[in-house]
Formats: sequence, structure tokens, C-alpha cells
Amino acid sequence: MLCVGLDPDPQRLPAAYLSNADSKGDAVLAFCCDIVDATADSVCAFKPQFAYFAAAAAESQLAELIRYIHQRHPDIPVILDAKRGDIGATAEQYAIEAFERFAADAVTVNPYLGEESVRPYLEYADRGTIVLCRTSNPDSDWLQNHPVDDPIYLKVARSAVGWNRNNNVLLVAGATYIEELARIRETVGDMTLLVPGVGAQGGDLAAVLEQGSDANGYGLIINAARSILYADAENAGAGAAGEAARIVDEMRRLQRKVAPDRAMV
Amino acid sequence: MLCVGLDPDPQRLPAAYLSNADSKGDAVLAFCCDIVDATADSVCAFKPQFAYFAAAAAESQLAELIRYIHQRHPDIPVILDAKRGDIGATAEQYAIEAFERFAADAVTVNPYLGEESVRPYLEYADRGTIVLCRTSNPDSDWLQNHPVDDPIYLKVARSAVGWNRNNNVLLVAGATYIEELARIRETVGDMTLLVPGVGAQGGDLAAVLEQGSDANGYGLIINAARSILYADAENAGAGAAGEAARIVDEMRRLQRKVAPDRAMV
Repeated sequence: MLCVGLDPDPQRLPAAYLSNADSKGDAVLAFCCDIVDATADSVCAFKPQFAYFAAAAAESQLAELIRYIHQRHPDIPVILDAKRGDIGATAEQYAIEAFERFAADAVTVNPYLGEESVRPYLEYADRGTIVLCRTSNPDSDWLQNHPVDDPIYLKVARSAVGWNRNNNVLLVAGATYIEELARIRETVGDMTLLVPGVGAQGGDLAAVLEQGSDANGYGLIINAARSILYADAENAGAGAAGEAARIVDEMRRLQRKVAPDRAMV
Repeated sequence: MLCVGLDPDPQRLPAAYLSNADSKGDAVLAFCCDIVDATADSVCAFKPQFAYFAAAAAESQLAELIRYIHQRHPDIPVILDAKRGDIGATAEQYAIEAFERFAADAVTVNPYLGEESVRPYLEYADRGTIVLCRTSNPDSDWLQNHPVDDPIYLKVARSAVGWNRNNNVLLVAGATYIEELARIRETVGDMTLLVPGVGAQGGDLAAVLEQGSDANGYGLIINAARSILYADAENAGAGAAGEAARIVDEMRRLQRKVAPDRAMV
């Protein structure tokens, strides 16, 4: 259930990648490919963060990275974390970008503009649409938990069930808000949840597994990025492989403890 | 107060642009430059829509277009309509993209993740941050007007006043919801509002001027896109120039009628 978030911050890139590449974009690509190969045995998905590629003018390297993952690890889906949110005609363009140009298997989208801003993605029946519901950051409370008696995040969760006719809708539910994660799980049945916020942000992995899993003990894509990407500045690949394997072991151990009846393979 | 939205839909691009260019991106660039030159005398801003460039893999042409506007029409600001919305560290990357890579004068942002997702843009004190508040599309009601007694869009408007320490915050307030536009104006004083939804979407220009203007009769950036871009399939430039001039004349006429004390130059 581990997803590696590919958030290649140029400030934290090991120096060797920068000195061996012709451009910042090429350094980012080489780094991400090494992380991908090193962690592929431990993950259920990779999630490149669009912003890091956009700031570095590295769209072609993003396309190349996704192509690389598809070729080398064809069973591992790629989630493009772009958090798009726009009116219908514009959302159609963003869906073309994510699914046709970049050939992503899923994309994250923002529900602020309502169903019409989500619909164009849903029509790609073989691709996933991952709707922001309750994000992991501290400031998310302000809007997503308003008003307390019928908060926005639950309204989004209820609507997502209705949008899920092609069984291709997922929700973002942060590990830092366990009570809300449990309410989302209650609302959406066995819909898969993308869970950021474990690791650096302090989300409790045991509680996520206990409150967030579906009835079969699955249904979670748990994202980790910084703790894996920057585990070892000297040897990024080995560091990432070790940290990813450690997290998966920890997941197995906790799963046996919190839900022994829902055994994880 | 007219802004021309540069939403170059390849399906609607006059055929000559496509046949004269080496790529879809180059066709889009040539078309947008012609629209810019044809309408520059009538506008207060240009607003390229990121999605159309992203779907066509035309980021370099988007950068070229913005450079062209800055060189040829240095007094006309460029709003990058990208509706970014992400956690703080990621928003920093998007701010670099918008303000440094693309040299936009302002960018649209989505408030779903709260203040931390807006803050990195605000720190560019000489650039505008345009926060989605009440968008013009029909589906916006679902989230933005929830709950009725203290709706999200008003919560965003109140917060925007607090975020405006550098006097660089603007809000999106659609022309299709006049009552809400009036409540937003009431809430934010003389903050400038970006108003989509006039024209094809059916927003009433007279009502927008009456209810949306600030105390001096200004404070609005009224966006029109399709009605200008595709006014004449044979001669896009001349068609756009005529339609933009017509809208500005209409604005002047209506302004004299609805607010004769707030004369428009």
C-alpha cells in the first residue's frame, strides 16, 4: 500500500545529480529514475508532483519519467499530482494533458468548482480521478471542516460516491486527521483512499491502517516522499530502497496488530 | 476594465493558423499574438489559460506569448490563469513557475487547502494573487455556497481581506451570481475583482457594473474570451478588435447609466 511521492526539490537533490546533468530538469529526471528503480519492489504506485517539474521547466522530463516507469515497471500505476480544478471546457484540456500527453494512470483534482470540474476526468473510464477531500496540511481545517455540523470534506465524500459510476474515483484523506479519515471510510465504503501525511508530517501509521482500511484490510495508497527521497544524500537509491522496505515492514507488522483478521499479503 | 482571456481552443482555431505553423503550439502562439495586438487598445489585462497550453505541450509558447505581451504592450499586465492549489512547499514551486519562469504579473489560485497554499504567492509583493471566491459556473453553488447561512465564498472573501497586507490580493467573483458579487464587494471594500461569466455564460454587464464596482466606479477586471477570440473565423484580429471595442463602448454607456456619479474615463 506504499506510494512513493516523487517531489524532487532541487534544493535537496544530491549534488552529484546536478553536476552530472546538462540541466536542472535532466538532474531531476535521473534522480527520480534512480528512486523508482530502487523502490519498485516495495510500492503500489508512484506519484510525481507536477509543481517541481513546472518550476524547473521540465515537462519533457516529466513525460520521460512516466514513460520510463511504464516501460520498466508496467504493473505500477503513476499518479500525476497536479490538483487541477477548473470549469468543464478547461478541465477537458487538463484531462487531455494528464491522460493523453503524460499518459498518467490517475490525476489529483480539486473539487472547489463542483462536479463539472471533475466530470471530464471521470469519462476516462480506465484512469483514476483522485479528488481532494481532507488534505493533510494544518490549514486545511479552515475550509474543509466548515461548517462543523456538515463539513465540506464530508459533502465531497458523499458526492464522490455518486461520481463513481465507472469505479474510477478515489479520494485524498490525510493521515493527520484520523477522526475524519474514519468518517470518510464510513461514507465511501470500499473506495480507495490516497493518504498523505505519514512520516515527516506526523500522521500515525497504525491509526491510518486501523481507521482507514476497507473491510478487507486494503483500500489505501499511503504516500511517503521526503523520508524516502532524501534518506541518504550519498547514495539516494540505496537509502530510498531501505526506507521504503522499512515502511512496508512496519505496515505489515502494524496490520497484524491492529487488524489481525485482515491479513496483508 | 476589459480583460481578454486567451483560451486558444485548437478545435476553434481558424484553419489558416494551423496550416501555417509547424506545430499546434506555434499555431496557438501566432493566434494569441494577433489577438493581443488587435485588442491591446481596449484592455486592462490579458489572461492566458494555462490548460490550453498544457494540453498542447506548449509551455515554451506560453512563455513566448507572455514575453511578447511584456515587450509590445509593457503597460498591460498578464494574469496566468492556472488555478494552482497545493500545500506550502509545493505552492512555493508554483509561485516560482508563475512569477519567475513565466514572468506573469498575477496568477489565479484555489483556496481549498487554506492560507498556507496562498501565502507563497503573497510574498511576491509586486505581483497579484487572485483567489477563487465565487466562480461563474453553474456547479459552483454546490461547494462555494455551502452552508447557506455562512457560505464558503464569504469565508474566502473575509480571509482575503486579512491576506492583503501587501495590497496584492484580488478575488474571482463570477458575473452570473450578482447577489453574491454584491456581498463580496461589501465584504472586501475596494479590492479588485476578476469577473468571468459576461458574454457566452450570460452574466449581465449592467448588473456587474452596478453591484460590483468599488466606490470610485472601478475595481473590476471583466473577462471575455470566446466572444472576442472567435468573433471572425476569416480575420481573427479584426473580429477581436471590433468585439473588444464594442464591449468597452457598452461598458462606458452602462456605467453612465447605472452610476452616473462614477464616471468612467
